[in-house]
Amino acid sequence: MLRPAAALLAVSLTLTPVLASKARADEGMWTFDNFPAARVNQTYGTRIDQAWLDRVRNASVRLTTGCSASLVSPEGLVLTNHHCIVGCAQDLSSAQTDYVAKGFLTRARTEEKQCPGMQAEILTSIADVTERVTGAGAGKSGQDFVRARDAETARIEAEGCGTDASLRCQVVSLYRGGQYKLYKYRKYADVRLAFAPEFQAAFFGGDPDNFSFPRYALDSAFVRLYENGRPIASPAYLPWNAEAPKENEPVFVSGNPGSTNRLQTVSQLQTLRDLVIPHQQLQRSELRGRLIRFSQESPENKRIATDPLFGVENSYKNYYGRMRFLADPAFFEGKRRAEAEVQSRIASRRNQISGDPWREIAEVQDDYAELYLPYTYVEGGGGGSSLYGYARTLVRGAQERAKPASQRLPEFSESRLPLIEKNLLDARPVEPELEELYLSFWLSKAREFLTADDPDTRLLLGRDSPDTLADRLVTGTRLADPAERARLWKGGLAAIQASQDPMIQYVLRTEGRGRELRRQWEQRVTAPTDRASEQIAKAQFLAYGDDVYPDATFTLRLSYGKIAGWTERGRRIPAFTYIKGLYERATGQEPFELAPRWAAARTRVKGDTVFDMASTNDIIGGNSGSPLINARGEVIGAVFDSNLAALGGAYGYVGETNRSVTVSTAAITEALRTVYDQPQLVRELTGGRRATR
Amino acid sequence: MLRPAAALLAVSLTLTPVLASKARADEGMWTFDNFPAARVNQTYGTRIDQAWLDRVRNASVRLTTGCSASLVSPEGLVLTNHHCIVGCAQDLSSAQTDYVAKGFLTRARTEEKQCPGMQAEILTSIADVTERVTGAGAGKSGQDFVRARDAETARIEAEGCGTDASLRCQVVSLYRGGQYKLYKYRKYADVRLAFAPEFQAAFFGGDPDNFSFPRYALDSAFVRLYENGRPIASPAYLPWNAEAPKENEPVFVSGNPGSTNRLQTVSQLQTLRDLVIPHQQLQRSELRGRLIRFSQESPENKRIATDPLFGVENSYKNYYGRMRFLADPAFFEGKRRAEAEVQSRIASRRNQISGDPWREIAEVQDDYAELYLPYTYVEGGGGGSSLYGYARTLVRGAQERAKPASQRLPEFSESRLPLIEKNLLDARPVEPELEELYLSFWLSKAREFLTADDPDTRLLLGRDSPDTLADRLVTGTRLADPAERARLWKGGLAAIQASQDPMIQYVLRTEGRGRELRRQWEQRVTAPTDRASEQIAKAQFLAYGDDVYPDATFTLRLSYGKIAGWTERGRRIPAFTYIKGLYERATGQEPFELAPRWAAARTRVKGDTVFDMASTNDIIGGNSGSPLINARGEVIGAVFDSNLAALGGAYGYVGETNRSVTVSTAAITEALRTVYDQPQLVRELTGGRRATR
Repeated sequence: MLRPAAALLAVSLTLTPVLASKARADEGMWTFDNFPAARVNQTYGTRIDQAWLDRVRNASVRLTTGCSASLVSPEGLVLTNHHCIVGCAQDLSSAQTDYVAKGFLTRARTEEKQCPGMQAEILTSIADVTERVTGAGAGKSGQDFVRARDAETARIEAEGCGTDASLRCQVVSLYRGGQYKLYKYRKYADVRLAFAPEFQAAFFGGDPDNFSFPRYALDSAFVRLYENGRPIASPAYLPWNAEAPKENEPVFVSGNPGSTNRLQTVSQLQTLRDLVIPHQQLQRSELRGRLIRFSQESPENKRIATDPLFGVENSYKNYYGRMRFLADPAFFEGKRRAEAEVQSRIASRRNQISGDPWREIAEVQDDYAELYLPYTYVEGGGGGSSLYGYARTLVRGAQERAKPASQRLPEFSESRLPLIEKNLLDARPVEPELEELYLSFWLSKAREFLTADDPDTRLLLGRDSPDTLADRLVTGTRLADPAERARLWKGGLAAIQASQDPMIQYVLRTEGRGRELRRQWEQRVTAPTDRASEQIAKAQFLAYGDDVYPDATFTLRLSYGKIAGWTERGRRIPAFTYIKGLYERATGQEPFELAPRWAAARTRVKGDTVFDMASTNDIIGGNSGSPLINARGEVIGAVFDSNLAALGGAYGYVGETNRSVTVSTAAITEALRTVYDQPQLVRELTGGRRATR
Repeated sequence: MLRPAAALLAVSLTLTPVLASKARADEGMWTFDNFPAARVNQTYGTRIDQAWLDRVRNASVRLTTGCSASLVSPEGLVLTNHHCIVGCAQDLSSAQTDYVAKGFLTRARTEEKQCPGMQAEILTSIADVTERVTGAGAGKSGQDFVRARDAETARIEAEGCGTDASLRCQVVSLYRGGQYKLYKYRKYADVRLAFAPEFQAAFFGGDPDNFSFPRYALDSAFVRLYENGRPIASPAYLPWNAEAPKENEPVFVSGNPGSTNRLQTVSQLQTLRDLVIPHQQLQRSELRGRLIRFSQESPENKRIATDPLFGVENSYKNYYGRMRFLADPAFFEGKRRAEAEVQSRIASRRNQISGDPWREIAEVQDDYAELYLPYTYVEGGGGGSSLYGYARTLVRGAQERAKPASQRLPEFSESRLPLIEKNLLDARPVEPELEELYLSFWLSKAREFLTADDPDTRLLLGRDSPDTLADRLVTGTRLADPAERARLWKGGLAAIQASQDPMIQYVLRTEGRGRELRRQWEQRVTAPTDRASEQIAKAQFLAYGDDVYPDATFTLRLSYGKIAGWTERGRRIPAFTYIKGLYERATGQEPFELAPRWAAARTRVKGDTVFDMASTNDIIGGNSGSPLINARGEVIGAVFDSNLAALGGAYGYVGETNRSVTVSTAAITEALRTVYDQPQLVRELTGGRRATR
């Protein structure tokens, strides 16, 4: 299990991704309406057809908390990652009952508990609306361009789903404006936690092992979809196959990759490399330090900060990999060549492209750099404070709902309101100490990066210090109470304006400047970028036809690949780990400590069960919880991570080394049966259809 | 006092330094034996001659704690910055007596207190030893090359100072190996604190105002040099002029700039930009977060963490500026042009340069990147823990002292031992909680960056977690006791090997691997870099003669310039601030809170006294505490900072905007008289020679 020295550092220096604009090998996060089934069938000897694709799509679940999942029983049972529901487990816990540390086990469905703010969505149809959206912006520029498209988008969504509260409609921009599609979802707003292992078992190895492999994490959990207080009937589920796959077996990932930047231009990636990522990483790193020390102050602090700290550390490590990847000059040389290749291929059809979109985007970068910090700190403020977030939603929501639908900010369009309301009004704990930490941190960073005498710093801070202001806002607000939030939401603009709540008043005082910065951002950054990106997408289609996949947008995609290890600095990393390896790796010291149930089960559990496994699928954050599916359409695991080499996956895919990491259904089944004593879940999953190991 | 938005960010994007290899305008950190007096006299109408240079040099003081200073009275009184003695004030304080927060005032010299570990040094002569040093390495490579030069250096230093304990000899590499000079110093090992203002007054505006201007900080303090228990006689002092200079008046800075990278090659600077600085900044940022939260836990934690936190924040902001500077592609284009210019100028004499030193250095960078992390974490370990540092000095010191002088590591050469001993044996407080924080932080970062399964991580951690190991080492060690350190130092290798102290044993267990990594580093990085750098320096001399200055090396340099404001994004920044501005800027909230003495003196203090001022002098960290000197050779202030634009000063000087920031003797005098009631100091400084304001 030794990995070579300095692996985290070295990884991106030694590998350069294939950067031809045409996808190669197992690259690609393909939309379900443009999946290269013929190529895959030819390469892997599979028989993927439209029926297969429809079955998988109908069983694929998006969780609005930023994850993917899959239906795995006819009674609404959904498999996802533990790290996708750890926020829910945290929300359901208290100082007395800690479902994060102890796990969440049920004996009967009546013990399943609703997850605040979580909604599950299943994609039911895709329709092309490109002409309507691009037509709305035609001949317009700047703010007019942005608003006209937003208004058309809102109309399309409203028409698409009508008043059916069980549906959600979403217009998705694909290929950075090359296509617009209306995605229609069946939604489920009552999602209940059914099973969660202990944090210690789900995240064994903690941050040190994160994004690495070999790995021994049971990063899996189950939720169940309810309607009218009862589990839904879900005939379109993925059959559970508790037998581990073989090396080189073809496998598929159906899920919602969050965001990639593969179609961005050299100048956009330079801005990320030189400005955005360093700024965010430095900030994340300090927040991490504050949270680590906060956690050490008391067991209760540790309990409430576990999930936030995990989130920060996960992003930090992820973006550290991205930094290293972008620091490689060979990557940028490859990008430049790829841009030149597109332009050369379309040289004779250049008149079909308006302007010089690559240059136009390069010219936007100065405005981007100038506006980035104030836009981030004022319009993007709050530092992750829930109370600030509630206040912001209440204030903006009241202002926007008072306008006609066509004039609203897109995030308050009619089709978005139900989820906004759910997130705002669902009861969940608010931790005042953490709230103060977040607010004070945000304000101190705003002062640092904008500088102390900047008018925006003065607007945000007045004559206060970050600590005193954070303390006053958190101590004085009543927004931790869902009833108060409901009162203000229902009361609309009048209630907001009459409110004496200091957080509401603070947001009222500062959000006008936020709107102004957003106006500038849309005028000077969003609009020219979107216009030019649309032309670049057009150029790509001209050059390569439809054999390209769009950047990730947290919408459903299908990735293909195979179970495979890889070679790292001359050393062979195997594709599988086994349960016995967990016991070998345990040191007794956090985060290499066995959860007590696992320690107790040591002699009973089958050590040669495949635990985690690596595959070549092209995935990224947002895919967490996605089913790993075999050629027969059965679920064989839940994808939960990628290896270090794949951390540059936002920018490119390197077939030789990029690997997804999945917890196997074999391990989950064995754990449910032997470690957690959950026979009812095992029965529901296996249903007698297939003998499990 | 409004500064433009996003100044910290924008500063390096909008300015590109003059990068011709020949110094321009007020650029240059000149050695005293190659000061361009003729050019300066012509430009500024001054009369700088050898006598002037000798007078200034004889009054210029280097503090071994990393600062500069100057003799300002005939009785050994030395002016420096508060931030140069804050560590001393901290060491002299306790939970009961806080000289950092309250200031350190004396009524009589008997109240002056010795600063642990501080030694003052005055440069008395410079001699060229280039041929001896380069001759020793001739025909050698790798480790042999490094060791041969180290041995010759040790011999030169031993011969230069003999057994005279009042002298210190140091061979200095200038122009990155283009010259070697023997610097001989008169040293003073008994340095006592005489006056320090409150941290709040010295560092008014705190981190938000750091590296910015206008500024209102009394960043000044006095120490006194003692010998045989009495203040020294110091006839060669700088006369105190308490009258502020005028705009455009020529001014000089005599001090010890610590380190610059202006003569480094493009490939070396890319390694800094892409690897070293991002890594260090991310680490610093997390440590900052841990220390901030640590400080908030109790008043005593705040007291002991004030100075460490200041240090981390200062470095962080400094290197953030450097990151921004290096992110500018125009800078690297300029560097490439400058390298090409040198090569083109010497084209006909290229046979005088051996090999292609630019290419050779570029080829070293892969080895640099490969070794950087393990070398940093193992050989450069300890994370700033004093206890670890003591153990390391004891172990290595015992091992090295057992060897013949010519075979020792250079840091344990005979000429260095007295200062090592002083630092090791002087009593100073050790704070166990901070020690654990540092050690645990270091170990956690080592595990993170080397990865959990790396053999070096396993060597450092064993099966421990960072927290448990740090706790065991700090709890078990007796090295906080100076008597125990003295016992082990005197006992030599036998005492070390017999010691049961867990910190000693830990260092014994890990330092062998440190030596091995160091051997590799010297072999693969230091030696080829030094050999090639020597050739590049030769090329520079061939191209430009002696009208070039060496990179900073924390040795005495003279900078010239003038009092001047600057224009930033169309806004004029004046050269001076006045005491009244302090009161206008105070908000009552930390760090914009008046020290109580200043609040009380509000109506008595002369508000129109110049407080801080900006000048064009080319300086960098290490220059802190340097006297600002007028054309007559009088001291008119203590340099304590530079502006944001100068943060890229390690790589280049931009005359239009780079500014040094100095606290005026006018403000110090007024403060001593009116705020701190220190008539004895005012008398000693002004001595009746000159009427002060």
